[in-house]
Amino acid sequence: MIDLYTWKTPNGRKVSIALEEMGLRYAVHAVDLSTGAQKQPDFLKINPNGRIPAIVDSDGPGGAPHTVFESGAILLYLGARYGAPFYPEDPVQRSCVEQWLMFQMGGIGPMFGQAFHFRHGAPEPVPYALERYDAEVRRLFGVLETRLGETDYLGGLDYSIADMATYPWVVPHEKLGVDLDQFPNVARWHDEISERPAVKRGMQVP
Amino acid sequence: MIDLYTWKTPNGRKVSIALEEMGLRYAVHAVDLSTGAQKQPDFLKINPNGRIPAIVDSDGPGGAPHTVFESGAILLYLGARYGAPFYPEDPVQRSCVEQWLMFQMGGIGPMFGQAFHFRHGAPEPVPYALERYDAEVRRLFGVLETRLGETDYLGGLDYSIADMATYPWVVPHEKLGVDLDQFPNVARWHDEISERPAVKRGMQVP
Repeated sequence: MIDLYTWKTPNGRKVSIALEEMGLRYAVHAVDLSTGAQKQPDFLKINPNGRIPAIVDSDGPGGAPHTVFESGAILLYLGARYGAPFYPEDPVQRSCVEQWLMFQMGGIGPMFGQAFHFRHGAPEPVPYALERYDAEVRRLFGVLETRLGETDYLGGLDYSIADMATYPWVVPHEKLGVDLDQFPNVARWHDEISERPAVKRGMQVP
Repeated sequence: MIDLYTWKTPNGRKVSIALEEMGLRYAVHAVDLSTGAQKQPDFLKINPNGRIPAIVDSDGPGGAPHTVFESGAILLYLGARYGAPFYPEDPVQRSCVEQWLMFQMGGIGPMFGQAFHFRHGAPEPVPYALERYDAEVRRLFGVLETRLGETDYLGGLDYSIADMATYPWVVPHEKLGVDLDQFPNVARWHDEISERPAVKRGMQVP
């Protein structure tokens, strides 16, 4: 059994999608970011960075409970332990999946997050920052578009944890001012993944 | 032989440190960011995201050349293929290293990068953004401080690719307005790693 600590954010949805895709049993613990639950001492014992998502796998390696924070690290752990088709063992395929997972972790996630903040969260308009992050969002969508014009999925021919990581960040594209009609390969990929039953379930958590 | 495409940045130094620590032969190709070399077509064939570092391992899996971009993915690839002590095979230890590597990739790197930009790169002062990213830098240093008060290295008892990823971002702490005297555990870790011969060599590349 896996305990999932999460909230209604793209980073949270990455992990609920992965758990659904891998057919794992899990219990959902909602960590309400609006009340600051992620900064409470009990949660900081699970993730010292005070962020969701985090998991505790009660049947971890060696049979002992294992705690994992950082959405990207959770995907690597789940993929290696339970989800081989989504995190291939072939070293070249594995490396390609890792490259696009890291592109999401280091680029898409933090930069889309900044664009969200300056569009929807900042208490005052900050024109320089708005333009900076909007431009970066458009650039990153362009990189996705090029990649998805060359191959079916981000990691290669097969759907992987790299797609699970990126999809929930592409879903709210309208809030980032992005029209998917301008990115037809991303739109094709987005629409196909949206139809996966496990993705539909994972996007409803919590 | 590994071809390393890099420049004088923390992300670049992560990889030159790793190559030195693992005792690998490599050729350095300087990609001068000040001239936009990372956006030229030849380099975009290596990294479609137009960023350094990237590597081409001429002796990749199966004997074929293998290209890797994203510093975090390069560390995973090199660690799995050539650097077992720095990327342990034990699944719990491996997961701990991956968590702190992802903390660097998704937190330290992008947020320190924004703080650098608003302190040193933006063409106009943006007080709201300056305070936002300075506060996040202090928070992240606090997370590192707590972790390094509990264990010798970020991933656990042993020096790993998580430390190689984080160290080059901690080195320029003064430019981020951070006094390491306020973070004694980080200072201890920083000073110890600074003395490693491979780190000294890696920090000089290119």
